[in-house]
Amino acid sequence: MERMDQGMPTLLRYENVAWHENGTVRILDRRVYPTEIRFVECRDYREVVQAVADMVTQSAGPYTAVGMGMALAAWQVRNAPKKEQILFLRQASDALSHARPTTVNRYAQITDRAAKLAEKALEAGEDPVQTIVDATVESLNRRYSTMQIVGDALAGLIPEGGRILTQCFGETIIGTVIRAARRTGKSFQVYCAETRPYLQGARLTASCFAEMGFETTVLTDNMIAYAMQNEEISLFTSAADTITRDGHIANKIGSFQIAILAKHFGIPYYVTGIPDRDKRTKDDIVIEMRDPAQVLNYRGIPNCLPGVRAIYPAFDVVPPHLISGVVTDKGVYVPYLLDRYFDTEVRTFY
Amino acid sequence: MERMDQGMPTLLRYENVAWHENGTVRILDRRVYPTEIRFVECRDYREVVQAVADMVTQSAGPYTAVGMGMALAAWQVRNAPKKEQILFLRQASDALSHARPTTVNRYAQITDRAAKLAEKALEAGEDPVQTIVDATVESLNRRYSTMQIVGDALAGLIPEGGRILTQCFGETIIGTVIRAARRTGKSFQVYCAETRPYLQGARLTASCFAEMGFETTVLTDNMIAYAMQNEEISLFTSAADTITRDGHIANKIGSFQIAILAKHFGIPYYVTGIPDRDKRTKDDIVIEMRDPAQVLNYRGIPNCLPGVRAIYPAFDVVPPHLISGVVTDKGVYVPYLLDRYFDTEVRTFY
Repeated sequence: MERMDQGMPTLLRYENVAWHENGTVRILDRRVYPTEIRFVECRDYREVVQAVADMVTQSAGPYTAVGMGMALAAWQVRNAPKKEQILFLRQASDALSHARPTTVNRYAQITDRAAKLAEKALEAGEDPVQTIVDATVESLNRRYSTMQIVGDALAGLIPEGGRILTQCFGETIIGTVIRAARRTGKSFQVYCAETRPYLQGARLTASCFAEMGFETTVLTDNMIAYAMQNEEISLFTSAADTITRDGHIANKIGSFQIAILAKHFGIPYYVTGIPDRDKRTKDDIVIEMRDPAQVLNYRGIPNCLPGVRAIYPAFDVVPPHLISGVVTDKGVYVPYLLDRYFDTEVRTFY
Repeated sequence: MERMDQGMPTLLRYENVAWHENGTVRILDRRVYPTEIRFVECRDYREVVQAVADMVTQSAGPYTAVGMGMALAAWQVRNAPKKEQILFLRQASDALSHARPTTVNRYAQITDRAAKLAEKALEAGEDPVQTIVDATVESLNRRYSTMQIVGDALAGLIPEGGRILTQCFGETIIGTVIRAARRTGKSFQVYCAETRPYLQGARLTASCFAEMGFETTVLTDNMIAYAMQNEEISLFTSAADTITRDGHIANKIGSFQIAILAKHFGIPYYVTGIPDRDKRTKDDIVIEMRDPAQVLNYRGIPNCLPGVRAIYPAFDVVPPHLISGVVTDKGVYVPYLLDRYFDTEVRTFY
């Protein structure tokens, strides 16, 4: 099978989330990358659920992880009667797709398909484990192919020599925009909001761009207005964990305020990704509230005296009036008109 | 001498920055508080300069530190001929006042006065060391007295049961607004932006308010818009490291973007403090650029791959159109009309 991760940053290598023949799903721990290269090994699909919930992998990582988690479930139940296998896989699909509340629909696309393919394989006397592994890699490849169109489109929107501001870690678009820039010779600089509390912007996004030779600058999350005023930011861009058909997006906490600031300074904000067919309005968005302890501590070091509380909404919602355009595989949409995306054939690729 | 730190949070105790008779200035290390209670001991005034530059103490801490640094300088040179002592103290005043570029004028008010008082003491055959120590404590008391008027005024602006958002650590106003709230029975909740990279908002401000019994919530710096939208923030307030006569302020990096967000959401922003007589316009503001390594690391743990750069402007500038009012000891001023503060007698109290 063709590998779409060639020439990509280390973080986008297929082996970072992989199925191993001995019944293990091995996941690169992005919570400590790049300071440490550590893998979490799961021998039960429930451990994959936990790993996704704990953000061992995030961004597009869970799309592969929940797929491989389904392969692991099939492996765990391989010696049971066929009927039991099918039931077990349906339970696994339910658990894996609900690992995080904001992206249930996206995960379910992968896990439901895996359960169905496994069922067919069982009927046909084929190996359900290998079937699911193949389907997961194929889905990953398909995602890269579709998102390469988006990456090409985003690269086309960046002025030559411009400076783009990013938030959090949108892994597939990072890989594809880098590939597009290399192919076309487009050069640009990258400013990464560090994205507390997990610092994915600093640890993951900045590391990816720097590894691929881009001049990359990290900003703490309170330097955005300063940078927009003093560092000649050309555009702000982010991926999205949810894109509703009425033009709202949910993305990593902080996206909302950067969008307000971009509007204040007259800087365009382009969201990349594919609209979620089954999310009509912002009321369909579920914001995950994570453990506030993650805000009150940093790598185990407490920040405050006991008694201080915190909140940790993992995402916030950006309304269409703050978004300049949604860059999809079918073109750049005015957010208010995003529903037109579904006027033509839909590609499903998560 | 009356102590104005009674009933104040631990961080505002006089002994946190103190002169010791054995020729030591002992400074609580706010870079690690409250996780660790550690003191930096300076036996040369140049070590005090370094401690202020390194942000061992910040906010109003340096006002006392540079004063005690002058006492230390006087102690160091106590056995030299009078002429040499005077020269040494002038050099010390110059070095201590320039420890950080944005607040030179404020530090110089204290150190120049200390040098002059020491000179007089020497003429009169009195002890210059004790003279400077007394003057520094007196100045601190005077500052607390003046800022209590500001704290009373700010407390009056907070709606009963309201929720105030703070940025960084404005120590004197925190102490005085707490005292005002206790006296009047006003209750409110506090939301603290954690204020990367040093997290003074989480470590210092949140710890102070929680210690004094206020319900206190820490936000990462990218949660401000979310909190303004979802947590019913009543007002944003901050101190300022510089307040120009034309209504601009310089304060901890991030104040600018919070001010933009406050305007977006229709939340008032009150700056507290005394305008700087010798700063006419924003062109008189010098923004300190600190070591970017402080952004790329957290407590010694690197965040990114090598090759990533960062910027670290310590402050940003908020223009008058984003400030609802400047709360001073003479009343609340429209920022555009701030110069009127100087129409009547000026109190100098740094």
